[in-house]
Amino acid sequence: MKKNILKLKLRQIFLKHKLSKKHAEISSDYLIKAEILEAKGHGLARLKMYCDRLEKKLINPKPKIKIKKISSSISFINADNSIGFVGADIAIKQAIKNAKRTGIGLVAVRKSGHYGLSSFYAEQAVINKLMVFCFTNAPAALAPHGAKKSLFGTNPICFGVPTGKIPFIFDASTSMINRGTIRRADKLGLKIPYGVALNKKGKITTNAKEALEGTQLPIANFKGSGLAWMVDILSGVLTGSSHGGKVRDPFDDFSGPQNMGHLFITIDPKIFIGSKFIKEMQKNIKFVKNLPKIKGFSNILYPGERKNKTYKKNLNKDISIPKKILLEMEELNAIK
Amino acid sequence: MKKNILKLKLRQIFLKHKLSKKHAEISSDYLIKAEILEAKGHGLARLKMYCDRLEKKLINPKPKIKIKKISSSISFINADNSIGFVGADIAIKQAIKNAKRTGIGLVAVRKSGHYGLSSFYAEQAVINKLMVFCFTNAPAALAPHGAKKSLFGTNPICFGVPTGKIPFIFDASTSMINRGTIRRADKLGLKIPYGVALNKKGKITTNAKEALEGTQLPIANFKGSGLAWMVDILSGVLTGSSHGGKVRDPFDDFSGPQNMGHLFITIDPKIFIGSKFIKEMQKNIKFVKNLPKIKGFSNILYPGERKNKTYKKNLNKDISIPKKILLEMEELNAIK
Repeated sequence: MKKNILKLKLRQIFLKHKLSKKHAEISSDYLIKAEILEAKGHGLARLKMYCDRLEKKLINPKPKIKIKKISSSISFINADNSIGFVGADIAIKQAIKNAKRTGIGLVAVRKSGHYGLSSFYAEQAVINKLMVFCFTNAPAALAPHGAKKSLFGTNPICFGVPTGKIPFIFDASTSMINRGTIRRADKLGLKIPYGVALNKKGKITTNAKEALEGTQLPIANFKGSGLAWMVDILSGVLTGSSHGGKVRDPFDDFSGPQNMGHLFITIDPKIFIGSKFIKEMQKNIKFVKNLPKIKGFSNILYPGERKNKTYKKNLNKDISIPKKILLEMEELNAIK
Repeated sequence: MKKNILKLKLRQIFLKHKLSKKHAEISSDYLIKAEILEAKGHGLARLKMYCDRLEKKLINPKPKIKIKKISSSISFINADNSIGFVGADIAIKQAIKNAKRTGIGLVAVRKSGHYGLSSFYAEQAVINKLMVFCFTNAPAALAPHGAKKSLFGTNPICFGVPTGKIPFIFDASTSMINRGTIRRADKLGLKIPYGVALNKKGKITTNAKEALEGTQLPIANFKGSGLAWMVDILSGVLTGSSHGGKVRDPFDDFSGPQNMGHLFITIDPKIFIGSKFIKEMQKNIKFVKNLPKIKGFSNILYPGERKNKTYKKNLNKDISIPKKILLEMEELNAIK
């Protein structure tokens, strides 16, 4: 589908689900961005979920978002159960402002929901010449080391840095595979790789539905488990949001809002060494790229480079949408 | 050896190597702490290295450490090539002060060296009721994803949080195994586990010497590689220290000071939700501990709990010192 047509359709669907014009636009833009980036688990596969929750008022279509100033560096945002994109979008813009003013920004968001990719927000900070951490928790998907039941989300760690060229943006879940990828595999009847998830009985499975009912495996055993726990504390406990496995699954749990939390830390990378920073950053990348490579690698990419290539490659292409999702869109657009 | 005797001996050795009384005491204390924690790769196995570098003035025995105030939250420390412990000790204390005053502290250290365990410093912040990140880079030991040569250090990620009980302190290298463990295995003629390191030719090896000549493997492939890269940027590039594989190996490279960088970020965890934080943190831990466990686990420990147990277990025990290191100590004490 042509992107401008898709955008119109999505805005129309969100407007029909009572989002304001501005929030409908923000949400449509982020969903399309996920599709362009081929992060399909964060794209249109989630549209029906967002609409279902809006309809049930579990996402507040007309949130009164409050920004509390704690200091020139620190802000606390009550997103009033807005669609995740909207609260996070306000928060990263505030975090950018704070760091521009003081060298460091710290912005917490509570009463939020799934916000798509952390890199959406990291990128904005990096374009504004800031270093950034983005943390968000997520519904239970990962078993803590030693447990056989999910509790942590796939809790990504996201870190961005300006390079003067393509942004360095590391954005990786603490699980062996993204939950969105499993969801999409389930939706489309695809298999998942071996060794990334267990079924309910604790056995490795390649069946997406079984994996969703079971639990995912963290990277590097106790290390990944500890990193996921760190993210839960930073985005859940610290922000006064749900944590410890209590963030509601947006697809399965309609008993209340998700109550997810996010945390953004922004740093002006020039505070210590001034404009030398960008030069050193470029040297750093060069040192890595100049290393002898293993077989199959002609170039060592830094985090963010591959996504940037994907983005450029797809920017002027139409977006291919599976039939199942097209049907969902028609239904969502037909209401009322 | 009795701890009080060991402490006297270490202080004497450091004094003989021209450290001030205060710096000798700080350094002895941290080395003994590593031994008590059974982090032997960061303990007495490094004593001779520190002394050799002091003798060659690659560690400055009488550093003029400068603390530059950038704002009430942000400080920049030039450690003047002090022994790593000393610069880092000053820095974490400054970071604690800054966060107590403003809610958030950011302290960078340049011209530093190996500082032992990150958890030494994280613990101090946590005891002062702060959340904390500690980042340090390290000599090349890890191949970036796609490369066959070491460039990143084993660059640990360290994160601490007060719990009202035993501190939550996650401290994990981004490598499959700590370099100190390999060094010690080499020193004592022990094997290393299979699958954690490659030899010069890129083949898996269990020989410690071959591993030191070759390269270590990062956790979770590109994810661990990206995390190590992040730590190199935060502690090396941002602070104006060496980076991109240029931090000197303290054991092998006597061509100049290490020029290592550290970064500490401290956060008052009460800034958003006040004293509710500790209650929520305790709930969070309870949620995890109450999960059904896999075989072999009677309790799910949070990061820092095991180290705390080890510490308590060993606190009143003598420290066992391998003969090789005892001989080194005698020689170091005999000079002049």
